[in-house]
Amino acid sequence: MKPLHIAILGCGTVGGGVARILTEMQEELSARASRPILLKEIVELNPTYASQRFNLPIELFAGGGKDLTPDEASSFIQRLIHSKDIDLIVETIGGTNDFVYNLSLDICKAKKHLVSANKSLLAERGKSIFEAAKNSNIMLGFEAAVCGAIPIVKTIKESFTGDSIISISGIMNGTSNYILSKMKSEGVSFKEALKSAQKNGYAEADPTLDINGHDAGHKLIILMKLAFGIDLAIDQLSVKGIENIEKEEFDFANEIGSTLKLICYGKQIDGEVYATVCPMMVKNDNFLSEVNGATNAIRIVNKYSGKHILVGTGAGSYETASSIVADIVFAARYADQVNYTHEKSKLKFIDARHFVFPYIITFRTGDTPGTTGFITTAIGQQKINIDTVSHNRHIKNKATFSVVTMPCTMKQVEDAIEKIKLEKPDMLLSEPKIIPILY
Amino acid sequence: MKPLHIAILGCGTVGGGVARILTEMQEELSARASRPILLKEIVELNPTYASQRFNLPIELFAGGGKDLTPDEASSFIQRLIHSKDIDLIVETIGGTNDFVYNLSLDICKAKKHLVSANKSLLAERGKSIFEAAKNSNIMLGFEAAVCGAIPIVKTIKESFTGDSIISISGIMNGTSNYILSKMKSEGVSFKEALKSAQKNGYAEADPTLDINGHDAGHKLIILMKLAFGIDLAIDQLSVKGIENIEKEEFDFANEIGSTLKLICYGKQIDGEVYATVCPMMVKNDNFLSEVNGATNAIRIVNKYSGKHILVGTGAGSYETASSIVADIVFAARYADQVNYTHEKSKLKFIDARHFVFPYIITFRTGDTPGTTGFITTAIGQQKINIDTVSHNRHIKNKATFSVVTMPCTMKQVEDAIEKIKLEKPDMLLSEPKIIPILY
Repeated sequence: MKPLHIAILGCGTVGGGVARILTEMQEELSARASRPILLKEIVELNPTYASQRFNLPIELFAGGGKDLTPDEASSFIQRLIHSKDIDLIVETIGGTNDFVYNLSLDICKAKKHLVSANKSLLAERGKSIFEAAKNSNIMLGFEAAVCGAIPIVKTIKESFTGDSIISISGIMNGTSNYILSKMKSEGVSFKEALKSAQKNGYAEADPTLDINGHDAGHKLIILMKLAFGIDLAIDQLSVKGIENIEKEEFDFANEIGSTLKLICYGKQIDGEVYATVCPMMVKNDNFLSEVNGATNAIRIVNKYSGKHILVGTGAGSYETASSIVADIVFAARYADQVNYTHEKSKLKFIDARHFVFPYIITFRTGDTPGTTGFITTAIGQQKINIDTVSHNRHIKNKATFSVVTMPCTMKQVEDAIEKIKLEKPDMLLSEPKIIPILY
Repeated sequence: MKPLHIAILGCGTVGGGVARILTEMQEELSARASRPILLKEIVELNPTYASQRFNLPIELFAGGGKDLTPDEASSFIQRLIHSKDIDLIVETIGGTNDFVYNLSLDICKAKKHLVSANKSLLAERGKSIFEAAKNSNIMLGFEAAVCGAIPIVKTIKESFTGDSIISISGIMNGTSNYILSKMKSEGVSFKEALKSAQKNGYAEADPTLDINGHDAGHKLIILMKLAFGIDLAIDQLSVKGIENIEKEEFDFANEIGSTLKLICYGKQIDGEVYATVCPMMVKNDNFLSEVNGATNAIRIVNKYSGKHILVGTGAGSYETASSIVADIVFAARYADQVNYTHEKSKLKFIDARHFVFPYIITFRTGDTPGTTGFITTAIGQQKINIDTVSHNRHIKNKATFSVVTMPCTMKQVEDAIEKIKLEKPDMLLSEPKIIPILY
């Protein structure tokens, strides 16, 4: 059969891993696909370093191994996109700028299959790329864009096709999970845990996207599209990070038999679907409560087949690269028969504030008699049933306590807090923290 | 696009679930596959019961709804196999007899796609069925044959294609796992736990294949073929069940920080591959130790992408049926492009006795000074390093104790025991139990 010829754009941590696996496993991969899978060319600004780091023949690099200026690289890329000798292009440049956006569109329009690990691009500007792929009937592989090595994309696209997904919940950011695990096990502050994560290579120098929930949000956006057919912009998604989590919240978590985790959550119910990324109190008998460190885990509940859990490594060079190579083999096997689904989502996306969860609300107040009564009454007036009220922690003349509600909407909780602020402007010493509880 | 026309043979627990999902989700499934997926006919001896149980139109049944004799059913089946109007046949009759074996071959030869949940047939007589499917270039789907709802077959076939599987370990039989969980949590005997499993619907009236490890063995045989390209006959596989597990073994497990589980295990190392099904002491930090009740779980270690875990429901009507429907959608999408892999396994299958594990060996002896010394010396003479020796449990004039070894082969252990028996024929009061320890 006709070989599948591959070009890789960007030979960094992930692209280099792909090149290495394609080279090392060339024979097996070709046998698996029943056709030769051949890496033809790599475009990289600094080929000498990449070639040494991943033990790759220098002849594979565009330009024969010399360093490239961005303009030179760009013209090599354009040549590859329009070359008749290339069937599939791997985009491992990353970023969301116009350059990488436009070249992704160009690849689709030139009818080359595209495999991408670029979650931020697909989440933030993916709609037109998906459309371009569909219009050209090329295969767009993005297994590597969601949770690295975990094959969640193909699991949803090819294995859960005989079912309806009810809910997705997951730990999809290893950095924030490492930090929360550290805070819990060693009782350190967020800042100390972040420092340790950076020191041990679990957080980058600029960890913003990891700790503010946006990296997890990107993954959830892609999964919401796959699972529920919903196209979400990042600003439609309710996203909260872990940067304001304090040590004492782990005590409250412990008190209610749960563990604090940054959770990606999406659920359909009665024709409506909603999604959120935020810290949640995960009950200790939910498997996600036990997922520690840099591991990722996804829990899916299906209508017919019930609960599923997938666990694996969410990042890393070869871990992510192996997912890209799986997309390449899949394209080699089936890309001539790409058929974009005609399924149209009938689900309506609703604001997460209208969705029903049990919540734990933590209040800081002055140490004044009547406070607990006033606050719990205000909560009751919003028709929220209260499950438990924690004991009051007194420090000097301040008190901290938490209220666990029965399932209600975030809007109800916010309305109760609004009312407290309005009627007793001095009662709350800081903004109460509202955290959903995940069973 | 051309519709995909389906016939179902056998409308019991699983086949009925398939018919129900195909009927209920007809529109979504067709949209997902970009072509109509139509259930055309069901062959079932007792259509009235099946139609009521799964709420299916009686017209779907061959013969128009009347009860069929086996001969009538057989002739309806032959008609469907040779009908130009049928593209894919679902075999949910079950069993390994010649009738179902021959009809599976006939389906392949007639160039109908075949989707089967029949693990025992595929494990015991599958080789020629796989060959017939390959020769006719039809798609043979068997996702449902291994661990019900867990999409392990497609995960290996389509998602781990950019990697090499190093090892598979799993809990693949819900009945035996339920029994072991019960024995552990309630301290009851095997017999009592089995009774409870039968009472609660977790074990069948004849639970032989579940408790003797053969059901798990069937699944492992199919996975060994997928993961390592090895065709194993059931008598080549080392299989031990749970029927001889005693209460005290849970104490020994606890003492070494582990939990007793029936484990399916396969591993490749240095060009050799081996496999076994047996009770193992699973260390408590291995996720499999926490999998309780009827849940199935599979842990796979890959060369590039590291550890993966899949958890889900291993049995049940709709759970298994949803896996069959996923195979149908996959066939609707890609079956015109079936390409059997040309990959040939270079691995050599070796007897599990030659594979290296740490073991725990439990000895029952008379309460005689010098016994521990003699036994541990005999073990040392086989070049086995000892990790720990448990304290002796004395009951009247008998003693029970266990020895934990460093990694060694089962053959070394057996040789040591042989030597003890030879030199001190009266020392061992019963056959020592040898259980591998899984880290």
